Amino acid sequence: MEGLLKTTGKLPVNVKFLLEGEEETGGEFIEAYVKTKPPRLKADAAVVCDTEMFAPELPTICIGLRGLVYYELIVQGAEHDLHSGIYGGAAPNPMMAVAEIITALKDRNGHIQIPGFYDRVVPPSEKEREAWARLPFDEKEYTEKEMGARELVGEPGINVFERTWARPTLEVHGIRGGFTGEGAKTVIPARAVAKISTRLVGDQLLDESIEQTRAAVKAACPKGVTAELKLISAGAPSLTNPDNPFIHAAAAALKDTFGKDTVYIRSGGSIPIVGVFDKYLGIPSVMMGFGLPDDNLHAPNEKFHLPNFYRGIEAVARYLEILGN
Amino acid sequence: MEGLLKTTGKLPVNVKFLLEGEEETGGEFIEAYVKTKPPRLKADAAVVCDTEMFAPELPTICIGLRGLVYYELIVQGAEHDLHSGIYGGAAPNPMMAVAEIITALKDRNGHIQIPGFYDRVVPPSEKEREAWARLPFDEKEYTEKEMGARELVGEPGINVFERTWARPTLEVHGIRGGFTGEGAKTVIPARAVAKISTRLVGDQLLDESIEQTRAAVKAACPKGVTAELKLISAGAPSLTNPDNPFIHAAAAALKDTFGKDTVYIRSGGSIPIVGVFDKYLGIPSVMMGFGLPDDNLHAPNEKFHLPNFYRGIEAVARYLEILGN
Repeated sequence: MEGLLKTTGKLPVNVKFLLEGEEETGGEFIEAYVKTKPPRLKADAAVVCDTEMFAPELPTICIGLRGLVYYELIVQGAEHDLHSGIYGGAAPNPMMAVAEIITALKDRNGHIQIPGFYDRVVPPSEKEREAWARLPFDEKEYTEKEMGARELVGEPGINVFERTWARPTLEVHGIRGGFTGEGAKTVIPARAVAKISTRLVGDQLLDESIEQTRAAVKAACPKGVTAELKLISAGAPSLTNPDNPFIHAAAAALKDTFGKDTVYIRSGGSIPIVGVFDKYLGIPSVMMGFGLPDDNLHAPNEKFHLPNFYRGIEAVARYLEILGN
Repeated sequence: MEGLLKTTGKLPVNVKFLLEGEEETGGEFIEAYVKTKPPRLKADAAVVCDTEMFAPELPTICIGLRGLVYYELIVQGAEHDLHSGIYGGAAPNPMMAVAEIITALKDRNGHIQIPGFYDRVVPPSEKEREAWARLPFDEKEYTEKEMGARELVGEPGINVFERTWARPTLEVHGIRGGFTGEGAKTVIPARAVAKISTRLVGDQLLDESIEQTRAAVKAACPKGVTAELKLISAGAPSLTNPDNPFIHAAAAALKDTFGKDTVYIRSGGSIPIVGVFDKYLGIPSVMMGFGLPDDNLHAPNEKFHLPNFYRGIEAVARYLEILGN
């Protein structure tokens, strides 16, 4: 931007910045702000750089995101911790109950067992499937080098792109409660709290999915405990039609910068602001990001590839030029 | 003891003390010591005071204990934590795998699903069952006041005394790994570690039960992860025939102190040294303890009823007198 200003004296289009500092915690307050449709946010399109390239040197635009609903599953047994020798065999164990509930929500094939959960899931189009099939992809390398895993899991018969980009998931992130230190403590904990999230796709509705999940938790709750599903954050899924001038311009700018045709992919991640722009401002978001698959997103040793920082600057400047013409 | 010495000048029998400071962590080192059959430990019987009275003012001798085998179930997925947006649907989730394994080990009725686990379980005798049926017991008070629970759980059709004293159990004490803090973090943890224990009864053998549990964990381990069952400690169950002079003398001493007939019960807890005395020294243990059911054993606000401290002294002194006669 500064470069463009210095060389040409002015920007080819008007540019507004909106900084979202709470993206990782659900973006609750930015939604409340955008909801008021402030005149300062009037725009034709948004550019979001929080996505990644499919492969190094491969210009990528992301057109779909999964939604994210994050919960705490709070399971309460007795009022206080109990000794498993004295009471084991008669006392409800909330840690066991959490395990019973979450295994009832998702089967061993990765298929979510929440009634109605797949009703609004839209499968990817043939055109999209064909494009995904042409992506440079080595499943062994993805599994072993990128993920550091032994083998992939998930719904049988469904392609890995579709499983991670176009199918809902349910994950357990951690379970709090009881004794987890070194050695042995024979406690039946009074309470266990599981951090759980679902990723939504296609036309799945936030509120409906929350109601479905609550009902499934209630149905799966075993004897002797209570289970409460507390909502932590909720962001809708989004899918943009790539046939619009803002995305065409971005594809051209990326091609000019990287010297290769731009590919269209989706991401399994969630960027709530994209859904919020669509819902309240009615504008498309162009997701032109420069992360790389081995960035260790959200994990220890997260990184950003520095050359992509400079190429990103170049690509965005070119994008503004193309838009201005 | 000091009182007896002061009043009578000498003790009616020889008394040896063995202090066990690691009872709560499995008693590994005292077992190694007793195993050497040191001459200093030569004795006709042992008295263990680490049990409780069935009810306040009700003199109680415990004749049976459950064994305890404590494990860590270590489940490893990918080499590092993964982002659930990017990889959810393809990545193995060890937290979910722990839930799948533990729900495979025990069903919702509290019945252990480990093949062969009940083969050596000996049911209580008719005489014992009749004695238990005569114990003063209010199930509602036990459930709501003592345990602070809504309802009892466990194997249907089996009496609560039998469930907690004479049936094996499997409990999960806590699960370590992933994210358990406030708010949301969408991590698929690389590893999850569950603290698990089984309580054994009757003729169940430690090594055999460990092999059975290992085999069941192996069979229940889902795709994409490895599961290792690490042994933390193991103590055998024990059951003493109450028809021996040392227990008769204890019953008489308790009756003299509390003015009521002594009842014989079992405990669902574990005191490894009792099995160790039996195995290596061939001596019976008299479990004459003075805890109370509302002591909050191993839980916050654990207490000991002070009047029982003094009555315990009295009862033990009387016991030595009776033994000496």
